[in-house]
Formats: sequence, C-alpha cells, structure tokens
Amino acid sequence: MIRIAITITVLAWIGYSSEVLPAADAGKQLAQSKRCGDCHGATGISPEGTSYPNLAGQKVPYLKAALTAYRDKTREHPLMSGMAQGLSDKDIESLAEYFSSLPSCP
Amino acid sequence: MIRIAITITVLAWIGYSSEVLPAADAGKQLAQSKRCGDCHGATGISPEGTSYPNLAGQKVPYLKAALTAYRDKTREHPLMSGMAQGLSDKDIESLAEYFSSLPSCP
Repeated sequence: MIRIAITITVLAWIGYSSEVLPAADAGKQLAQSKRCGDCHGATGISPEGTSYPNLAGQKVPYLKAALTAYRDKTREHPLMSGMAQGLSDKDIESLAEYFSSLPSCP
Repeated sequence: MIRIAITITVLAWIGYSSEVLPAADAGKQLAQSKRCGDCHGATGISPEGTSYPNLAGQKVPYLKAALTAYRDKTREHPLMSGMAQGLSDKDIESLAEYFSSLPSCP
C-alpha cells in the first residue's frame, strides 16, 4: 500500500514538474539557448537598420505559423530555416508565447 | 524664348509633383486603396485572435523584403501573394515606409 502511494506521488510529481513551467517562461529559456536575441534583439525589438523583424508583441498565431513554416520548409530563410529545425510543436508554442508576451513599445 | 521658359517650368512642375508626396504618405494612400487594414488593422496592429502580423513599427528593410518576396513568389500566402502582384519597387518602398512609421504601441 505504501509502495502504491509512493508510486502515485512520484508519478504525480513527474507530471507536475513537466507542466509547471508556463509556456512563455519555457520560451524565454529556449530563446536564450537559441540566441534569438542576436538578430531579433534582447527585448524582441531588432536593431535599427537590420532586416530582422521585431517579434515583441507579435500575435501568437502568426509567430507559430512562421516558425512552423520555417521548420517544415514551406518558408525559407538563410538563418531561420536552420534555426527552426528540430523544434517540436511545444517548443514553437513556447517561443510564440514568449515573444508575444514582450511589450511592443521600444 | 518664352516658349522655352514655359516648357522648362512645366517639366520642372511635373518632376516636382511626382516626387512631392513623401513615401509614407504615398504608402498610406496605397494601403487604403489595397485595404491592407482589413487584415492588419487600421493602425497596423492586427486584431487579437487572428494570424495576421502587426506591421506598425516594423523595420523598413524587413517589410520591403516580405512584400518583394510575395510579389516575386519566393514567399507564398493565400492572400498576400495575390495582393503583392503588380506592386512596383516604389510602391513597396512606400508601403514599407508607411507601416514602419506607425507607432508599434497599441
């Protein structure tokens, strides 16, 4: 009985910990590891004079569609096509939620 | 002599009038005639819940690249591919300047 209780507790904890990070926080971590800010700016506002789009405050469905298109090679870009390879649907959701959550005002 | 003077004046006026409209103003007129706001919002901020990107405050080089890609069919979208057909390089410059000039803060 004790063994069953421990098993349930452990399984519940594993389930909880894998879901506990809000999507935007997971997206922030992923954006940092992918160094998205090198082109799109640390705050999602890209540097003046560059051809990189601002991502801050952009719509979640648009960002998801863009990343998915890069991953699935229906949209091509010398840098983004490579960056998007290997992203899961959950990664894309997290990145979209994160950049959408950033204020669009510089 | 008078005829030459009149000719010079008329030619100078024609040249002036074709350049007098700042790019952003020309872009605003074109955006209205193309009804860009139907999807991207009257202020360049697209409606919540849609998959249309905000254009307000976006970088000019990015907007030019996007419109050129739609026109030249190196980027495809069910609506934008058609909308961009027939745009001149100057039209694209004007639209990019206009949307970039709009404040990105909602």
